[in-house]
Amino acid sequence: MAQTSASPTPLLKDELDIVIPTIRNLDFLEMWRPFFQPYHLIIVQDGDPSKTIHVPEGFDYELYNRNDINRILGPKASCISFKDSACRCFGYMVSKKKYIFTIDDDCFVAKDPSGKDINALEQHIKNLLSPSTPFFFNTLYDPYRDGADFVRGYPFSLREGVPTAVSHGLWLNIPDYDAPTQLVKPLERNSRFVDAVMTIPKGTLFPMCGMNLGFNRELIGPAMYFGLMGDGQPIGRYDDMWAGWCMKVICDHLGLGVKTGLPYIWHSKASNPFVNLKKEYKGIYWQEELIPFFQAATLSKDCTTVQKCYLELSKQVKAKLGKVDDYFIKLADAMVTWIEAWDELNPPKGSAELPNGKGK
Amino acid sequence: MAQTSASPTPLLKDELDIVIPTIRNLDFLEMWRPFFQPYHLIIVQDGDPSKTIHVPEGFDYELYNRNDINRILGPKASCISFKDSACRCFGYMVSKKKYIFTIDDDCFVAKDPSGKDINALEQHIKNLLSPSTPFFFNTLYDPYRDGADFVRGYPFSLREGVPTAVSHGLWLNIPDYDAPTQLVKPLERNSRFVDAVMTIPKGTLFPMCGMNLGFNRELIGPAMYFGLMGDGQPIGRYDDMWAGWCMKVICDHLGLGVKTGLPYIWHSKASNPFVNLKKEYKGIYWQEELIPFFQAATLSKDCTTVQKCYLELSKQVKAKLGKVDDYFIKLADAMVTWIEAWDELNPPKGSAELPNGKGK
Repeated sequence: MAQTSASPTPLLKDELDIVIPTIRNLDFLEMWRPFFQPYHLIIVQDGDPSKTIHVPEGFDYELYNRNDINRILGPKASCISFKDSACRCFGYMVSKKKYIFTIDDDCFVAKDPSGKDINALEQHIKNLLSPSTPFFFNTLYDPYRDGADFVRGYPFSLREGVPTAVSHGLWLNIPDYDAPTQLVKPLERNSRFVDAVMTIPKGTLFPMCGMNLGFNRELIGPAMYFGLMGDGQPIGRYDDMWAGWCMKVICDHLGLGVKTGLPYIWHSKASNPFVNLKKEYKGIYWQEELIPFFQAATLSKDCTTVQKCYLELSKQVKAKLGKVDDYFIKLADAMVTWIEAWDELNPPKGSAELPNGKGK
Repeated sequence: MAQTSASPTPLLKDELDIVIPTIRNLDFLEMWRPFFQPYHLIIVQDGDPSKTIHVPEGFDYELYNRNDINRILGPKASCISFKDSACRCFGYMVSKKKYIFTIDDDCFVAKDPSGKDINALEQHIKNLLSPSTPFFFNTLYDPYRDGADFVRGYPFSLREGVPTAVSHGLWLNIPDYDAPTQLVKPLERNSRFVDAVMTIPKGTLFPMCGMNLGFNRELIGPAMYFGLMGDGQPIGRYDDMWAGWCMKVICDHLGLGVKTGLPYIWHSKASNPFVNLKKEYKGIYWQEELIPFFQAATLSKDCTTVQKCYLELSKQVKAKLGKVDDYFIKLADAMVTWIEAWDELNPPKGSAELPNGKGK
């Protein structure tokens, strides 16, 4: 295909997979066609595997349903949630690319204040390809953006920044509220376009939403486990939160950066607050124990890889959160299974390729 | 004066002083008249005290020159800088109000993206009157703003927030860059209006600029000492940085909040980068030691007031930064003098009023 100056080769075209968890036809891709079509999609079909998911013409994709997950992972498939969008992390595991962008199928293209369509993927890539600054706050936000820099008083030794592992994007229209807030403010819409990207400082936790998220799979992939949610589990809607808290502790330990802010997507559809309340209510009181746990969590010096960090964290989860509820003992075991499965599908570079690679 | 619904009583009219350090006529106040005229101004005249500073008609003000400072503080006047805008902190000390807004005389009214004049003072007051959230990051920024809230995954126990001590505003047009950055990017202008206010997380330091700054004097006033700069001192342009680092350590210890973001002012005039380089160059390498010092600083449990915190910090400055340069020994002593002078002019509530109150 001839490229014009107006449509240059898409950034990281062969180094990024788009992961989409879904239970329905992917008509929402039509709106994203100008931005997503050059990329490879990994679709993780949740729920009934006999259902056929329609993918619009012209997209390059692979699709995994529950039968595929069971076949590929065998008994280790137990770590992948069912009937919950947490299943998306299976897509992170089977990808062989350096970068992942994941998006929900009720997220559409948002417009910037000038009325122009926002290429969310391009902004995530920019975020991921420029460094982060977790050790000191820059009041003009991302110092690497055009027209910005480090302000007076910013130590020069910190201006190189650190590699960015995660880019957390936001949502116009329906904000990502919990069930109680949804119930209290059913009509609230987010219409504020905040033209900023910033690093979440070291030592600070945040609520990572999985709706509109990019990350460097090589740097942080094994920490992006979305936990045990949905079918057979006592909670839902904490999959991305769990991943975010684990990931942030590990990024802080390994000296990696996490950015939040741009890009926005248009979140079209508020989920049912009554259903959400049922999924969330245990999480709402558990999180009062989870946050102090993650705030206090430290990893030992010999945790030099994401896998080692994650296994160390799983031990702490079992020892400390196991007292909160037996669920966390099961979750800690699933964290170990997840790492085993990850390493099986992603053998360390230099080792022989296993025959049971990626299913299609 | 009759009030209409279009001009309600200005917020905190009798509880806030505007502090302006200057060496010239205050014609810049004409532009601020609609916003500042209802408030009381404290003008701190720097440099030659025999010079007459013209203040536009109709403003309610008190003005202090160096002779006034020497008369009021006696030997303790040594802690107030001369020939440097650091002298502004004298205004914080002589104020009797609960809130302070301080602004430089080369800062004009900025416009928001719709073209409307920004009432910077009003936004600072909003920031100061709503809580801060230093313990956990909210991805939709200030959760207390209209149209925003805490997002899913934000612990409910943290949603009351903590009292806000400081509101740090930003600058359109000339960004607050250090001399090296000014020299490298002489034409860079800040034209990005970021429509956000956020809390600087606990444990995170930032470069506080004194150009456009509001604070709660009752909560944090004694920590807002702008140090020894200018005439007879080896550095300049680190007055606000010093105050910001000390203040942040103390706010973190006392559980107070610091916000940054809106409001913007229009910063009209870039200072001379060659002059700035001369003022800054020692600071540029000292700050490489200062930041780790402040990042590691902890205060003991019996530091229950700002004064106690500040005196404790001054001891640590002397003990640890005194090794970097003798200047910090002098600065540590000045920090003690500052607190003595503060307490003299601001006797604890309930104690007898001293006769040598505010000079006029």
